[in-house]
Amino acid sequence: MKLFVTGAAGFIGSNVVDRLLSEGHEVVGFDNFVTGRREFLENAGKLPTFAMTKGDLLDTESLRSAMAGCEAVVHLAANADVRFGLDHPGRDLEQNTIVTFNVLEAMRANGIKRLIFSSTGSVYGEPEVFPTPEDAPFPLQTSLYGASKLACEGMISAYCTGYGFQATIFRFVSILGERYTHGHVFDFVRALRRDPSRLRVLGNGEQRKSYLYVGDCANAVVMVLDHPPVGVDVLNLGTDEYCQVNDSIGWICARLGVHPAIEHAGGERGWVGDSPFIHLNCGRIRALGWTPSLSIRQGVEKTVDYLQANRWVMDPLA
Amino acid sequence: MKLFVTGAAGFIGSNVVDRLLSEGHEVVGFDNFVTGRREFLENAGKLPTFAMTKGDLLDTESLRSAMAGCEAVVHLAANADVRFGLDHPGRDLEQNTIVTFNVLEAMRANGIKRLIFSSTGSVYGEPEVFPTPEDAPFPLQTSLYGASKLACEGMISAYCTGYGFQATIFRFVSILGERYTHGHVFDFVRALRRDPSRLRVLGNGEQRKSYLYVGDCANAVVMVLDHPPVGVDVLNLGTDEYCQVNDSIGWICARLGVHPAIEHAGGERGWVGDSPFIHLNCGRIRALGWTPSLSIRQGVEKTVDYLQANRWVMDPLA
Repeated sequence: MKLFVTGAAGFIGSNVVDRLLSEGHEVVGFDNFVTGRREFLENAGKLPTFAMTKGDLLDTESLRSAMAGCEAVVHLAANADVRFGLDHPGRDLEQNTIVTFNVLEAMRANGIKRLIFSSTGSVYGEPEVFPTPEDAPFPLQTSLYGASKLACEGMISAYCTGYGFQATIFRFVSILGERYTHGHVFDFVRALRRDPSRLRVLGNGEQRKSYLYVGDCANAVVMVLDHPPVGVDVLNLGTDEYCQVNDSIGWICARLGVHPAIEHAGGERGWVGDSPFIHLNCGRIRALGWTPSLSIRQGVEKTVDYLQANRWVMDPLA
Repeated sequence: MKLFVTGAAGFIGSNVVDRLLSEGHEVVGFDNFVTGRREFLENAGKLPTFAMTKGDLLDTESLRSAMAGCEAVVHLAANADVRFGLDHPGRDLEQNTIVTFNVLEAMRANGIKRLIFSSTGSVYGEPEVFPTPEDAPFPLQTSLYGASKLACEGMISAYCTGYGFQATIFRFVSILGERYTHGHVFDFVRALRRDPSRLRVLGNGEQRKSYLYVGDCANAVVMVLDHPPVGVDVLNLGTDEYCQVNDSIGWICARLGVHPAIEHAGGERGWVGDSPFIHLNCGRIRALGWTPSLSIRQGVEKTVDYLQANRWVMDPLA
């Protein structure tokens, strides 16, 4: 199948691209390289089945023409910066909501109906049911990031009803692994590299979070290509476990061989809008035959190892 | 209180403005007069407590300055055209989602934190629980209109978490009554005026819908001003009953004294994305002390009477 992948040079995007290519698919990548990295596409770039367009999803003309001839779209490009939404309230609207509308319209212009989209467990806000199923009680949004992804989900779903699109919407937990470029493991490893004697932690460290290894995430994307839904299908994607931020810190420190004094900023949440407990019920995607290969701990350790072996990711100017 | 009302010249907006003024509030109205009517503000315009700005909510500068000095915002302006979303897929995004972001940013710039917003029962898509409560199972969107209003709800809710806003989000059923300018009663009355011998009905006429009288809607808006929530409060707003489209047609025809042959287009839905059954659980707002004064039938009849007495609303050039 010939696939159009947005955010192809990003952390998740480049992993998905590699996995799609290894399955024999053709891939047209699209990325503005604002957070994406050329280096992540080094292997893909050697294959004749891969083509890359540098472009911005706000440029509707170039988006439409780059997408021509593809059979399905994997839309992964996003402002994935949950934490700093309040500093730039327009960014999630523009980079997530408006950009997704542009992707949908480019698909319509090209007669493409199959879409795979990366939404987020953040759309559950602070849920009351754990593990949280896809049909949890209608949540209130607590972050602009979650709100913008929910806006995307809504438009995609309406395009399925209105224009006969077939969309798989994934609600991801936090993803980690090779090419990881932001998030708590990144922040902690970088901080500990600068000063291994102390580590400052947002919140009380008791926040309970789920993480998923990027390889398992890419497997899920590849798998659902064989399960085109009637209309829209929403699938949680995560492991069946969660850990405390403090657990994760312990694994990171052990892997790095450091023993810092931990300073907790305090409070139940890491930041305003942070959800103190994320644990998704992933029964629906498991019923399709998907299982994660790595535990959260193994995923965290693999991420630490990757960051240690690829210091340029953390210190691009070094 | 000094209130900023968007869509002030519209059907619901002008009724809310009149009600707010009659309660002794000061009102600054804002409208681009694309669907709003100067005539609807005739009474308001005579009062010294009312001021009107003609402006577009996409013009962020004029929005911000018009809002200055107000204590709360009632944001009613919207593209309320549920049915034709698929003909103009960008309109709901622009007129509902982006415009609401502009309102939120103008509030933030002016230090205003209290917001009352008109969302819609359409955000429940095709619900499985009736009457549908605010915390119904997380729905799938079936219309671009519903999706755009859900996007607004999400942003508003995130502004409450992130910036300390206090927002009341109403999920309206279809509203009818004086100054009604679009919707099924409008369409039917206009069609029957042209040809009282026959009436073409979208769907099989068995769609079950809820309607609320605009005076009861305005009462609810005024009432919640006295109930500022902590953060965000979502309130369904409708009657505790529903009717079939066929019931409504019967009431309209009786009121007009016509006996048309009814031609059903057939199918469960009036159009793609139409919800065949809308019936909201309004226990939450009733618990605050609100009750509707008119039944659905009374509301429909009042609307017919208004349209009969105000033919200029239906035939602006006549």
